[in-house]
Formats: sequence, structure tokens, C-alpha cells
Amino acid sequence: MSISPTRNDALAAQLDHAINNKTKPLGSLGVLETLARQIGLIQNTRDITLTKPSILVFAADHGVVAEGISAYPQDVTWQMVENFLARGAAINVLAAQNNCALRVIDAGVNHDFGPRDGLTDRKLAHGTRNFAQEPAMSRDLCQTALAAGMALASELEGNVVGFGEMGIGNTTAAAALMHKLTGIPVAQCVGAGTGLSAEGILHKQRVIEAAVARHAHAIEPLDVLATFGGLEIAMMAGAMLKAAELRKVLLIDGFIVTCALLVAARMHPAILDYCVFAHCSDENGHKQMLAALDAKPLLNLGLRLGEGTGCALALPLLHAAVNFLNQMATFESAQVSEKSE
Amino acid sequence: MSISPTRNDALAAQLDHAINNKTKPLGSLGVLETLARQIGLIQNTRDITLTKPSILVFAADHGVVAEGISAYPQDVTWQMVENFLARGAAINVLAAQNNCALRVIDAGVNHDFGPRDGLTDRKLAHGTRNFAQEPAMSRDLCQTALAAGMALASELEGNVVGFGEMGIGNTTAAAALMHKLTGIPVAQCVGAGTGLSAEGILHKQRVIEAAVARHAHAIEPLDVLATFGGLEIAMMAGAMLKAAELRKVLLIDGFIVTCALLVAARMHPAILDYCVFAHCSDENGHKQMLAALDAKPLLNLGLRLGEGTGCALALPLLHAAVNFLNQMATFESAQVSEKSE
Repeated sequence: MSISPTRNDALAAQLDHAINNKTKPLGSLGVLETLARQIGLIQNTRDITLTKPSILVFAADHGVVAEGISAYPQDVTWQMVENFLARGAAINVLAAQNNCALRVIDAGVNHDFGPRDGLTDRKLAHGTRNFAQEPAMSRDLCQTALAAGMALASELEGNVVGFGEMGIGNTTAAAALMHKLTGIPVAQCVGAGTGLSAEGILHKQRVIEAAVARHAHAIEPLDVLATFGGLEIAMMAGAMLKAAELRKVLLIDGFIVTCALLVAARMHPAILDYCVFAHCSDENGHKQMLAALDAKPLLNLGLRLGEGTGCALALPLLHAAVNFLNQMATFESAQVSEKSE
Repeated sequence: MSISPTRNDALAAQLDHAINNKTKPLGSLGVLETLARQIGLIQNTRDITLTKPSILVFAADHGVVAEGISAYPQDVTWQMVENFLARGAAINVLAAQNNCALRVIDAGVNHDFGPRDGLTDRKLAHGTRNFAQEPAMSRDLCQTALAAGMALASELEGNVVGFGEMGIGNTTAAAALMHKLTGIPVAQCVGAGTGLSAEGILHKQRVIEAAVARHAHAIEPLDVLATFGGLEIAMMAGAMLKAAELRKVLLIDGFIVTCALLVAARMHPAILDYCVFAHCSDENGHKQMLAALDAKPLLNLGLRLGEGTGCALALPLLHAAVNFLNQMATFESAQVSEKSE
């Protein structure tokens, strides 16, 4: 695994020159200009393009649900996977609207689906163990999940990939990971998830605080991931690492996906050069996690759904960045007068 | 002219019921849920749809450029209209990407284009007069421009219309209008426009302050519009009023377009029920103008280009709002367990 930083001053200057000569006031396309420049550096070319975008949705269950930390029962994980397969979920609608392929991966759901069209079976267990009692996974299982994610990313055809997830209990796992990897107090990492009451959130915080105290020895990113993480989070982190190594554009969704990236970035910091942050979600903690990664999200729509929905909604902005650079006239070609000095 | 408020409590309850039964945590689609509800109220139905979206780009020149208030020469107005017709501008690229029709209207450009494919000739003058010296338009000309805009909106086929503009000097006109209609100090209404220096911005402020003092008698919205407004702003305001009367969804772009809406809203406040605010631009003053209208913009991408570019970029979010309501499964249809109480 080797991820190269994208920095390339000569190419950046070429990209800036191309961007600045388009028929518009300097800098007036704002974030789209930043995006076009980033995509150029990722693809290591001035001729940027987006091919076959896809979103990978990783699903798994979490033993910590035994502590009563979710507003929904665990069965909702497999039921929502069925909903994905039947094309009835939000991510199905939004991915289809934006011509984005969708791949649903069973990383460790507590349900036997059998062979199913549209479902990629990478199940490594029927969910993790309850990290309030014991580590969620062994180190070995965690490495197997990372490797499975890497293998999945190797198979991707397109050069832009979004990440999504489904897993009842996974905001609890993600909040624990966030706390361990950033040092931000647990109270600022926990949120309502799928809709906890204030009392429920406080209980979730107490569960995490007790678990963090129990597993104080977990320090290294891999150990932290094995101790608190879900199988969908670990597999996603692996897929992110490989996708960056392959110089793809990574579209990062909400709280859980950003947490998977946080783990990956602690292992290989250069991965951040490849990341476009789709949105800032309404889940408490996401804003601070983004800040900890020095990430500037594209959208801020009060979403807190997961599934990769923010990625699907941000995709048109990536296309816009590529299209303006490839298709707009220059001052010269359009014979438009330049700025007076 | 009669614009009905969209409030309809029975329909709003039906829409909320439909939104809340989709397979997602309550409220988790954030702003998209608000949008779906608003579109339902505008269309007065639970069966919402977006048909044939279009963006109208109004172009005109401004006599006040004689005061040296723009970073670009006046010729750029007609040159950019040529660029629109040649499909080389940002709005061409972004509208095409989002399957949005584009109509370019010459409301008063200081250039003779002759009959041209793709250009709608509604030229009422070769630009306005210099409002530093005299009113930009007569009351009659201003009313003619409003009526021309209304006629244009009557011809629209689709049920969603975005607004854009081109006119060197029009941030100066819009800043004067903003100040007169909101009472916000001129210094907070002026910005860099296409790229003025700090010194240039200060000069622009002084020009507006002197003109405001000269035309202190202009108080009523129509008088204010005639005194400071551009022909593109007046024609756009007319088109907005008629489009709202016809219960279309109005997509509002940046500083100048929002200013045209501000004028329209001072004439008929119910128009605001029909408005979706595409983005908050980087032009100084836009944020405060939006706040004065109690408007919550969808995007915040640091754009300051005009042309309707923000509208084109926001259009996918409107489609997303309609699509999730029409296409997502319900908890019942997908047999997904509901929240535990």
C-alpha cells in the first residue's frame, strides 16, 4: 500500500492558467474551481474526466446494539439491505437520478440473504461483538475486512467512487472511533443517530465512555478500529485506501463514512488529497470530525441519513467542475474583453 | 396581477405524512424534505413534478458605468451575450449538464445584434441612463419592462423557471436598490462585482451614496426601480411576478437576481412562497439581502458569476426532492420496522 501525495506545482500552474482564462471573472466559480484543480491533480492531467461513477454501500451489524443505543431494532439493517435491493431506499433514488452505479456489500449483516442479484457477499461474521464487553473484532478479522475492501476497490471500473453505509448502531461505533483518534470528548462525538431522545444520547455517551475506559490499551489505528469498529467501517476504510492508491476521486459522505476515512487517514495521511467531502451532516460530531480533517464539505443540507446519499447529491457538482474546465470558452476564443487594469 | 399565498394546512399535513412514511429516519433528508413540501404547496398537489425547467437570462447595459464602477468595459455585456449564443459561457455548460433550457433575452443591451437564433429581442433602449446624473429610466419605461417580463413568463412551458442576468454595472444598480428597499447602509450593499479593488469598491460606494442623496424622493418600489434599476432587473421582476401568479417554482440566483426579487416582493409579498433560493454568493451584500428576505439558500459555493449559474447547479436538488417523494418506498411497502418507542 503506497498512496502518493498529489502535489505537482507545474501541473497546478497549468490548471490555474486554464481555469483563469475561461470567460468569467477570476475566481468567480468558487468551489468549482477548487474542485477542478483537485481533480486535475488526482488524475495527474490537465484533461480531467469522470468515468463510471459508483457508490459502494457497505452494510454490517454491531454487537453494541445490545446496550440499547439505537432508536431502531437491529433487524432494520437487513431490512434496509432488502430495500436497497428492491430499489426503494433514498440512495437508490438519488443514485439513479445522477447516473451513478450502486453496489451493496454485505460486510457482516446479522442475516442470511442467500445468493441475491445486486448484493455482493463479503460477509465476515454475523455482526461484530459488543464492544461494551469485549473488542468488536480480533485484529485478524479487522485486517481481513480491510483487505476485502481493498480487493473490492481494485475491481472498480470508474475513476470516481462514493462511499455509503447501513448498520444499526454504527453511529455509536463511529463516535467511539472519533473520540479515540481525535481526542475530542465523547460528549461532542455522540449524536442522535437515527433519532435518539436526549436521554438516549446520554445513555449512548455513557456506554461509549465505559467502553473507552475498558479498552484503554487500544491506541494504534488498527487496534482502535478492531476494538470499536464495525465490519462495514473497516471494509470501507480498506476500499478507500486502495481507491486512493489507484488515484480515484473519493467522495466522502456523512458521519460514519468520514469516520472510516479518519481511520484510513491515520494509517496513510496522503489519502486526504484524493477526498472530496460531499456534505456536512446534521449528526452531532460530523462538523468537528470534518474540522479535524481540515475538510471543507460541498453541501450543507441538514442530511443525516447515511447510505451515501450525500455523495449522490454532490456528484453533479463534480461533473460541473469537470464540464466548465472542458467546455467553457476562453476570453480569447470568445473574443471577450479582459478586465481593465 | 394577483399572487396567492401557498399556505394550505390540509395539504401540508398530507405532504408531511407522505414524507414521514418514507424509509428513512424522521427528518433525515433535511432541506430536501422542506423543498418537497414547498413544491407540493406551490403546485397545490401531493403529486409533485418538475416539467421542462428553463433559465431565463436577461441582459442589459447601465448608464452608470460612465462613473467607472466596473472592472470590465461595457462591451463585455454584448460580448458575453455572443458567448451565450455560441454556447461558450458557464451558464451554457451548466444548463446543458442539467437538462435545462436556456433563453437569452436582450432587455436593453447597448449593441445591435440583429435577428439572431437563440436571442429573444425585447430591447427597450440601448441601456439605461446614468443614475448618478438622472433617473435610469422613466416610470413608463420601467412599467413597459415589467410588462415585457410578464409576457415572457406567460409563454413558459415548464413549471420551474430559473433567473439569470448579464449586465456590466448591474451590481452597482442592485446595491442601490438593495439600500433603498431595505435601509441597509450602502457600504454593506456594495461589493467587488466582477473584481474591483478595495479602492474601486469605495468609489462605487461613493457614487451610490451621492445618487441616493440626489434621488431622495424615490420611495415607492416602482420609483426606486425606475430610478436605479436596469432594464434586465425590471424585466426579470416582471417575469418573476407572472411566473408566481402562474404557480411556477421560481429559482433565484445571486445578488442581482435576488435584488430583482426584492423589488417584486415589495410589490407582491406572496411571491416569496414560490421562491427557492439557489445559493448564497460571494458578492458582499448577498447574504444580508437573503436575510432581509428570510431566505435560506440551498448552496454556498463561493460563486459570484451571475448568469443563472447558481440556479443550474441547484436544479438537481429540486429533482432530488421530487424524486424521493415520488419514488422511495414506505416503511409499510418495504416491510421495514419502525422506530422503537
